[in-house]
Amino acid sequence: MTKQVSVLVAGSWGTAIASVLADNELDVTLWTRNLQQAEEINELHTNSRYLKDIRLSPRIRATTSIREAVENKDAVIFVVPSAGMREVAAQARPFISPDTLIIHATKGFEALTLKRMTTVLAEELPHCDPGRFVVLSGPSHAEEVIRECPTTIVVASPTAEAAEQAQDLLISNYFRVYTNPDVTGVEVGGALKNIIALGAGLSDGLKFGDNAKAALLTRGLAEIARLGVEMGANPMTFAGLAGIGDLVVTCTSTHSRNWKAGYMLGQGEPLDSVLEKMGMVVEGVKTTKSAFTLAQEYGVTMPITSELHQVLFEGKEPRAAVEDLMGRGRTHEIEEIANQNNKWIL
Amino acid sequence: MTKQVSVLVAGSWGTAIASVLADNELDVTLWTRNLQQAEEINELHTNSRYLKDIRLSPRIRATTSIREAVENKDAVIFVVPSAGMREVAAQARPFISPDTLIIHATKGFEALTLKRMTTVLAEELPHCDPGRFVVLSGPSHAEEVIRECPTTIVVASPTAEAAEQAQDLLISNYFRVYTNPDVTGVEVGGALKNIIALGAGLSDGLKFGDNAKAALLTRGLAEIARLGVEMGANPMTFAGLAGIGDLVVTCTSTHSRNWKAGYMLGQGEPLDSVLEKMGMVVEGVKTTKSAFTLAQEYGVTMPITSELHQVLFEGKEPRAAVEDLMGRGRTHEIEEIANQNNKWIL
Repeated sequence: MTKQVSVLVAGSWGTAIASVLADNELDVTLWTRNLQQAEEINELHTNSRYLKDIRLSPRIRATTSIREAVENKDAVIFVVPSAGMREVAAQARPFISPDTLIIHATKGFEALTLKRMTTVLAEELPHCDPGRFVVLSGPSHAEEVIRECPTTIVVASPTAEAAEQAQDLLISNYFRVYTNPDVTGVEVGGALKNIIALGAGLSDGLKFGDNAKAALLTRGLAEIARLGVEMGANPMTFAGLAGIGDLVVTCTSTHSRNWKAGYMLGQGEPLDSVLEKMGMVVEGVKTTKSAFTLAQEYGVTMPITSELHQVLFEGKEPRAAVEDLMGRGRTHEIEEIANQNNKWIL
Repeated sequence: MTKQVSVLVAGSWGTAIASVLADNELDVTLWTRNLQQAEEINELHTNSRYLKDIRLSPRIRATTSIREAVENKDAVIFVVPSAGMREVAAQARPFISPDTLIIHATKGFEALTLKRMTTVLAEELPHCDPGRFVVLSGPSHAEEVIRECPTTIVVASPTAEAAEQAQDLLISNYFRVYTNPDVTGVEVGGALKNIIALGAGLSDGLKFGDNAKAALLTRGLAEIARLGVEMGANPMTFAGLAGIGDLVVTCTSTHSRNWKAGYMLGQGEPLDSVLEKMGMVVEGVKTTKSAFTLAQEYGVTMPITSELHQVLFEGKEPRAAVEDLMGRGRTHEIEEIANQNNKWIL
C-alpha cells in the first residue's frame, strides 16, 4: 500500500519536503492553518508566498484539519518554526498513533526552556515510541530541493530502524539521505549554524571579505562543536552534513535568511527594521539568545555567539564586534579547536 | 635592528606576504627572475601582472639576485609554485645561513616524488636547522590581504620557537596568525583543498547549486582528513584554518584560480584550453594526480579525487562524474567520516 505521510506546516522547507515525498510517489498531506493557502495548493498547485514560480505535484493535498493531517499516517514530518513546535505537537497529540514515525526538520531550540526539538516533541507526544523520533538536517535550501538540484541530508534517530525508514521515504536520485545515530549533534549543528550565518552576513555587510568570512566559519564551527560535545554530541557529527555542510551553505548562499538578516545589520540597519523586512522567521536571532545562555550553563567559551549577542541585544556596533573577534590574543590553533594536548607542551 | 626578511617569488601571494611584512616595518626583499618586473616594483611600486591597481610599499625592494635575496636574512619565505620549489631552494642553498627561519607558503606536493614542501626544502637545504622550517597556510586570498581585509592564517613548525618567530614577523591588526605543531596536517590540508575547489567549480559550472557544493565540500574535507591522518596528521587540523577555513574560501570565492578552472571545465571547456586561459598555475590539477597516487599508496578511499582524476586525465564527462558522486550507495554518515564505531552496531 502507498505510504501515507504528512508534513506540518506549508512554509518553504515543508513544501519542498512534501515535493520530495510526492516525487517518491507517496501520498502527501500538507497541513497549514491558512485556508486560502490550502485552497491555492489544492486548486492551483502553487504556494506562491513561499515558493515563487514553482508548480507543485497534485499528489500534495493541503488541509487545515490537524486530525486529517496526522491520523492514520505512516510518518508525520514537523517543519514548524521552533517557537510553534510545542503548540502544533500538542494539537496533533489526540490524533497521532503511537507507532507513527515522527520526523522533524526544524533548526532551533525552544526559546525559554532551551530544549532541543526532539525533546519538545517527546514531551508533547508522550504516547509515541521514543525510538521513532527522527531529526532531518543538512545543507538544503528549499528553493534548490524543489528544483531537484542534487542535495544531501542526514537523518538521525535513537534507533537505526527509524532512521532507515526515514531514509527510505525521502531518498531519491537527487535527494541523498545519510543516517547518523547522533540526534543531539544533528540538532545542535542545525540550530547553531544560524548564529554563524548571522555573523557571516554581518561580516559581508561590512565588506570584510572572503578571508574574514572563512575565519568566522572555521572559528564558528569550533564553538558549535564545543557546546555540542558538552551537550552530549559526537564531535564527528560537526564535521559532517549537519555541521560543516549546513554551515557552508547557510553562510555562503544568497538564499539564506539568516545570512541576509546579518548582511542588513552589517550595513547599519537596526534589528527591528531587519526583522520586519524579512517577513519570515529568522531563527538565528532567537538561537543566539538561547546559545548565549547555554554557553554559560555548560561553561563553554563561544566568542562569536557572545559578540553577536552584544550586537543584537546590547546595542554594540557590528564593526566593533567583528574587529573584537579578529583582535583576540595570539593563540595556538589546536587548543582552541579541541581539548587536545598540544604536542609542543609535554 | 630591523629584521631582514625576503620573499621568493613575486607572484600575487608572495607580493601580498611582502606587503604584510612591510606594513610591520620590516625590511623586505622580493626576489623575481624577471628583471622588468623587479624594475617595475622598485620604480613604480606596482606588480601589475599579478595585482592590478595596487600600490606597494617602498619598503619592498625587488631583486633578481638570489644571493642578495637570501644572504644575511633573519627569515626567507618561499612562495614558489610547487613545481619550482626544489630548484629555487637549490639556487638559494649556497647563500642561506643555517639559522635562518625558513618559511614556505606553497600549497601542493612535488609532482613526481609526492613529497611535501617542507621535505623538499629540508632536502635542498640540508645545512639548515630542521627545527626552523615553517609552513604558512589558511584562508587568505592575496587580493584581500593586500587591501588589509581581516585575515587569519596558521603557521606550523616542529618547534614552538620557530612557529612563534614566524607569528611575530607576520601578525598585525588585520593579519591574525595562529600557531600549530602539525606541519603535515597544515601542508596536506593546503595542498588537497585545491582538488575540492576544482570539484566545487565543476559543480557550479554545471549549475548544480549550493546544496550540491556544500555536499562536495563536506565529503571533500572527509577524504582530505582520511589521507592526512594516514600520512601522520592530527585530524583536528582539518577542522581548523588550514582545513575547513581554506577549503571554504577556495570553493566559494570568485578569486580562486582552482574554482575558476573547475567552473570552466564544468561549462564544457577542455582542460588544455582552460589551463591556457588561466595563465597562472592551477595547483589543483597537478595535486589531483598526486593525491590519486597517494590514496592508492596509503589505501585510502577518495571518491571525489578519483572522479576528478577521471575528468581531468581520462576523458570522463563532468556531469557524469558529479552524478556518480551523488549516486553512491546509501550509507551511514559517521562511518564515512572517521573510523569510529557506529553507536547502533554494538
